Amino acid sequence: VALSLAFGLPDPGLFPTEAFAEATARILSDTRVATTALQYGPIKGYPPLLEMLAARLNATEGPGISTENLLITNGSSGAIGLAARLLLDDGDTVLVEAPSFVGAMSILRYSGAKLVPVQMGEDGLDLAVMGRTLEDMARSGVRPKALYTMPTFHNPTGLTSPEAARRTLLELAHRFDFMIIEDDAYRDLYYDVESGSLPPSLYSLDTEGRVIRTGTFSKTLAPGLRLGWALAQPVAVDRMMLLKEEGGTSPFSQAVAAEFGRDGAFETHVERLVEAYRAKRDAMLSALERHFPPQARWTRPTGGFFVWVALLSGVDSGVLASSAREEGVDYMRGERCFAGTPEPGNPTHLRLAFSALGLDEIEESVKRLGRAVKGLVG
Amino acid sequence: VALSLAFGLPDPGLFPTEAFAEATARILSDTRVATTALQYGPIKGYPPLLEMLAARLNATEGPGISTENLLITNGSSGAIGLAARLLLDDGDTVLVEAPSFVGAMSILRYSGAKLVPVQMGEDGLDLAVMGRTLEDMARSGVRPKALYTMPTFHNPTGLTSPEAARRTLLELAHRFDFMIIEDDAYRDLYYDVESGSLPPSLYSLDTEGRVIRTGTFSKTLAPGLRLGWALAQPVAVDRMMLLKEEGGTSPFSQAVAAEFGRDGAFETHVERLVEAYRAKRDAMLSALERHFPPQARWTRPTGGFFVWVALLSGVDSGVLASSAREEGVDYMRGERCFAGTPEPGNPTHLRLAFSALGLDEIEESVKRLGRAVKGLVG
Repeated sequence: VALSLAFGLPDPGLFPTEAFAEATARILSDTRVATTALQYGPIKGYPPLLEMLAARLNATEGPGISTENLLITNGSSGAIGLAARLLLDDGDTVLVEAPSFVGAMSILRYSGAKLVPVQMGEDGLDLAVMGRTLEDMARSGVRPKALYTMPTFHNPTGLTSPEAARRTLLELAHRFDFMIIEDDAYRDLYYDVESGSLPPSLYSLDTEGRVIRTGTFSKTLAPGLRLGWALAQPVAVDRMMLLKEEGGTSPFSQAVAAEFGRDGAFETHVERLVEAYRAKRDAMLSALERHFPPQARWTRPTGGFFVWVALLSGVDSGVLASSAREEGVDYMRGERCFAGTPEPGNPTHLRLAFSALGLDEIEESVKRLGRAVKGLVG
Repeated sequence: VALSLAFGLPDPGLFPTEAFAEATARILSDTRVATTALQYGPIKGYPPLLEMLAARLNATEGPGISTENLLITNGSSGAIGLAARLLLDDGDTVLVEAPSFVGAMSILRYSGAKLVPVQMGEDGLDLAVMGRTLEDMARSGVRPKALYTMPTFHNPTGLTSPEAARRTLLELAHRFDFMIIEDDAYRDLYYDVESGSLPPSLYSLDTEGRVIRTGTFSKTLAPGLRLGWALAQPVAVDRMMLLKEEGGTSPFSQAVAAEFGRDGAFETHVERLVEAYRAKRDAMLSALERHFPPQARWTRPTGGFFVWVALLSGVDSGVLASSAREEGVDYMRGERCFAGTPEPGNPTHLRLAFSALGLDEIEESVKRLGRAVKGLVG
């Protein structure tokens, strides 16, 4: 396949490769820093990176966050894995959005927990459905231990839930006594800041210590560093630290990230990413307008990497995938993003990632995909 | 404490820091390589590192090892954790040497398995005791799922078990149907090659696919890279790969290691390490001769980082630790290395690491520790 909209990879052209090379050279030429970066390090994380992150989260998430609330992990997958190990045992129930992030669902399944999907609406998780699900479960004596959710720039839908919905969700968590794993992998990549600020994270609205928020440098620096974090109450951080069994996340990678980010360089870099990814998002939305038929609806994400397309007239997902392949383009088939079997009559969904392709490639791939779709919807 | 014999850290003075800096610069200046090193990578590992490792293991361990037998992990702790997750469930029994590596025991405990210690003799695991333990367990209907063992340069004792004992152990594994996690973290650091070659690893003697061998670059390159591996049958490798939930080990670290090790540089570096650590081992053994009283016995390791000292006359371990601290020296108290409570009458043990200190510091710290010991035994 010549053009792929399937994978939510960051654009390698936006990696700060040269700055990483400079940061590495600086680290390794200072004997004291080199020794720290190359020796075993604290399981919690490399102190300068923890401090940089705490300062940044304090500025963006409101005060009160210190390094005590943080644990550096191997990407946000590492943080989700530790949260799952902390919260879930064999036979427990965990709620997930329908649709949800495929990688996280597979991590949650490792814990032995049962995944129960909760339908999403136009604004994220459908809280009416969520309430009914919780009541039904309570009647059968089931208390879900946790919800895994991406309220901001959701994968795969691109949706962001408003503040009021977040508050309602926290009330449900209180009433039905469950914890929340808030996956906030894309928060830094917000493209519409002029139309208002982002709703606060669930973590920052939570007053009961119910939220473990996971974050990552994979979208802002580079996935190859394998750096993410968990943001949580100190007691949860300490317990996840005990579960972290692989001798800690690479101090070398962490030192490169911390050295790279000094003196505001991280913020400058994120601004550059926002510009670049905004243009890609815009290119995809306008290409969809031009090339997709009226039977298609799609989300208009204000951040992140994904647009979620629904085909309202019944199109067989397998037939569409083959037809797209013939056009030389692929995407992620939506049904893969559901924990259960999507209900019959559910529209055929496509997750389109605009992150990795160039602007012309986005135009071309959406055009080809539109041709495949039009050939099937009539 | 001014001088510490407590931690088995590699000597940071032996890190190939400059060569790492050069390797990183080369990687990041080549766009294609930089993209691979900074992007998400295969869970199995960075292909050039897998190939380097397979070639090296083929040369040192006998033929038949390919990348299909390998999984790159976050240090050998990561490999031990994956092996534990693969082999052990809640309530299972796992055998461990008494004494054993503290870090591994804590990883094995995360799996929910019960640790049953098996006494060591002069030559490693006491196979007569092991046989009786297995028979007793069989009579009570217990089948241990696995043994965790370090047959080569054991931590904490420094012992290496001979080939015949290894073959007997594999027969026991066959007869009582258990798997073996062979932790071979120190194998490259063999100091007495002129007195004969090392016994083959359990992995290379095994004909039944019972051995998962774990290895690491932490002792030979630098712990801060967090690079280790599991060497096993492809079916076990594939299953551990599915359990690896953190998006893979850093491709960036792996690319640095692979680039560093090109054209035989890894072997040349290991030769340099062997020279340096051999001198430290010799310095410690001769300092023990000079400064320790006749009531002390110690092992004479042919590789690795540790000497294990037994004080044959009853010395209270806590009193000795305080007394040593007053002398400005510390060590690892031997009782920490036992899964159960050491039996009453067990000698007081000390694990002394000679890896991190300079030659003069080894002499000085053993002298001080000898003073503390003499003050209590005589």
